[in-house]
Amino acid sequence: MRIENIQLTPVAIPDKPLLNCKGVHQPYALRTIIELVCDDGTVGLGESYGSIKALTGLREAAANLVGLDPFHLHDLKKRVWNALPNGGGINAKTAVADHKLTDVVASAYEVACLDIQGKILGRPVVDLLGGPVRASVPFSAYLFYKFAAHIGEEPDDWGEVMTPAAMVGEARRFVDQYGFKSLKLKGGVLEPDVEIETMLHLRAAFPSHPLRIDPNGGWTVATAIHVARKLEGVLEYLEDPVLGMEAMAEVARSCNIPLATNMVVLEFDHLAEAVRRDAVKIVLSDHHYWGGLRASTHLAKLCEAFGMQVSMHSNSHLGITLAAMTHLAAATPNLNFACDTHYPWTDTDIIEGDPFRFADGNLEVSGKPGLGVSIDRRKLRKLADLYDSAGMIDRNDTLYMQQFDPTYERRVPRW
Amino acid sequence: MRIENIQLTPVAIPDKPLLNCKGVHQPYALRTIIELVCDDGTVGLGESYGSIKALTGLREAAANLVGLDPFHLHDLKKRVWNALPNGGGINAKTAVADHKLTDVVASAYEVACLDIQGKILGRPVVDLLGGPVRASVPFSAYLFYKFAAHIGEEPDDWGEVMTPAAMVGEARRFVDQYGFKSLKLKGGVLEPDVEIETMLHLRAAFPSHPLRIDPNGGWTVATAIHVARKLEGVLEYLEDPVLGMEAMAEVARSCNIPLATNMVVLEFDHLAEAVRRDAVKIVLSDHHYWGGLRASTHLAKLCEAFGMQVSMHSNSHLGITLAAMTHLAAATPNLNFACDTHYPWTDTDIIEGDPFRFADGNLEVSGKPGLGVSIDRRKLRKLADLYDSAGMIDRNDTLYMQQFDPTYERRVPRW
Ligand SMILES: [Mg+2]
Ligand SMILES: [Mg+2]
Repeated sequence: MRIENIQLTPVAIPDKPLLNCKGVHQPYALRTIIELVCDDGTVGLGESYGSIKALTGLREAAANLVGLDPFHLHDLKKRVWNALPNGGGINAKTAVADHKLTDVVASAYEVACLDIQGKILGRPVVDLLGGPVRASVPFSAYLFYKFAAHIGEEPDDWGEVMTPAAMVGEARRFVDQYGFKSLKLKGGVLEPDVEIETMLHLRAAFPSHPLRIDPNGGWTVATAIHVARKLEGVLEYLEDPVLGMEAMAEVARSCNIPLATNMVVLEFDHLAEAVRRDAVKIVLSDHHYWGGLRASTHLAKLCEAFGMQVSMHSNSHLGITLAAMTHLAAATPNLNFACDTHYPWTDTDIIEGDPFRFADGNLEVSGKPGLGVSIDRRKLRKLADLYDSAGMIDRNDTLYMQQFDPTYERRVPRW
Repeated sequence: MRIENIQLTPVAIPDKPLLNCKGVHQPYALRTIIELVCDDGTVGLGESYGSIKALTGLREAAANLVGLDPFHLHDLKKRVWNALPNGGGINAKTAVADHKLTDVVASAYEVACLDIQGKILGRPVVDLLGGPVRASVPFSAYLFYKFAAHIGEEPDDWGEVMTPAAMVGEARRFVDQYGFKSLKLKGGVLEPDVEIETMLHLRAAFPSHPLRIDPNGGWTVATAIHVARKLEGVLEYLEDPVLGMEAMAEVARSCNIPLATNMVVLEFDHLAEAVRRDAVKIVLSDHHYWGGLRASTHLAKLCEAFGMQVSMHSNSHLGITLAAMTHLAAATPNLNFACDTHYPWTDTDIIEGDPFRFADGNLEVSGKPGLGVSIDRRKLRKLADLYDSAGMIDRNDTLYMQQFDPTYERRVPRW
């Protein structure tokens, strides 16, 4: 059994004007949809980043994958490495954290290969990862400060969320609509004291919901320690308060809240230093850059062995990614936190049938073969057309923010 | 698909009077052969220890496994843990290193489940572990000092090997017969200076063969440092020269030979301390106690992330174990050493057809479904009868040595 044909479709997903420490989400988020077609007609699906570097890497590796046995995942990795001799990262040069192109490309194709394997076996992907440890996977509400509307558009139905009280309203809607039992705030946006206030408002409104805040390294060490001290006993973890292993270790030593990261520990080679410095207690896994689903199970075991926990990171994404996250989460014994997901911010999908629907904040693990999702070609065409017409090839939250506020500047750290 | 029936057959394998720092191998080595029979008739094979504690644990867990889906390996582990509430170790109380019964039992059944998975898929087990990174797996000659004969028996055809010159002869026979390209000596038996001499003789006789010595922790720190300094540039690694993490770290600091271990790092929980103390550079994996084949792939990735290498450990074993080792080794990218194996010392097997045959020191990875081996019931019956008639339920090399030398005493460390 061999891979015969590879289809890559960049798509644009309508997004909301959500804020972070670098700016604001543009009207579209970009993804790439992957279809691996085998000589027996089996099709494996994957989803990855849509930035031009990721897309180009996926395209450059594709030719090397023709003839690959979809069970030979070490061979997949080797072929990807051979296809991308110059490697590099997928993010803009100014990015403070980057992901290796080879890891991203190998990860994307690995998931599609596992989808094929599951289909051949007539088994869900979770069964290729050791089987489920839970029948349903808890996700977290992903709260953002936001503007009311994109440039030149009418306000969306979430409206402006720029105060603690408004954030409680946003959270309430998520909790009422999807039943989320954990709340994560994307911070680094407003004055730290306003964000502390926001977390305290959330705590008062949702006394039993675990809470997290993630300013994406937007704070100085002093600010981070200030926030951490104010929120001790309030947060289950504090995610990437500062940038860099040294700064993270310093914050870790100075507060009693466990630190989590998807910005200083991005690959296996970063783990030894993180352990040595005792810089983080929770690693956010993400199968899109850790090497795929199998590598993510290695990561979880490694964290367990070194007394760390795992949580799960998300970018704006569609249903193929969500399916893969759910299978992985279901097969990860020491995933003790609700997973991040941007999915509720996405009002659309390219999968056949209804989009995923969270119930009590959870998703059931599919028992269908492979990832358990298939592509609705009409829906895919629509988002592919949107990609073509949007004219975006990269994300730039800062540039877009400057359309709202011409005086806005990128600052690292911001506060 | 469910497991319906579990057959456990303890067997005795005729063994040679091979020496180590605790005594001498008894006339028989004990193993347990595992057969998991599914409701569709598929049979999964496994092989594990035959000590009474291991056998009893395997038996006690068996009832809990009826109804298990052989793809649900997390569930397998949970069932084993539930079945063995008192856990414990599999070795004698006096053992300096022990393996958790729960790990051993879960490991044994995991391999049998993977055999089933491969058979269902029509794929070799290596393809369930990410596919092969090598088509054939290098093994090492496993050299032992030995007596000429068991008590009351005629000399075996290897004769006595108690001098450096005789050891070169033993090595020559292994190299000529099987093509082994690495040589490992079981040390801790004779005066350390004689063992140094032995290694130097081997180096002279086999100038390009990587060499190792493993005294099973039989040396003091001072002895270990003495030996290490004499053998710098001669050994590829020094295995368990001393017992205990602290002593290993001290030896590591005092010599330029990388230290390997299967005695101070036996489970995932031991790794953090080994890393913190920089005590070992190579971890010998062994799927029989690390949690099975999948857990062994986690171990390999973890070692890679922390700058350690992996090699592979062996006890006296039959062909099911050898098949599993070969599939695992073929799927382990950072296995850069020839694997240990006692197999050439075993003149018998219970698998159908010819026993495994090393060519150029290597074994080809089977492309047959599952482990690629099946049981010859007549051969199994023969070794099961031998188990019944041997009257052994445990290994005790010291007690047996005292039949040769009534003044022999267990000493830890010996030299
Ligand atoms: Mg984050
Ligand atoms: Mg050893």
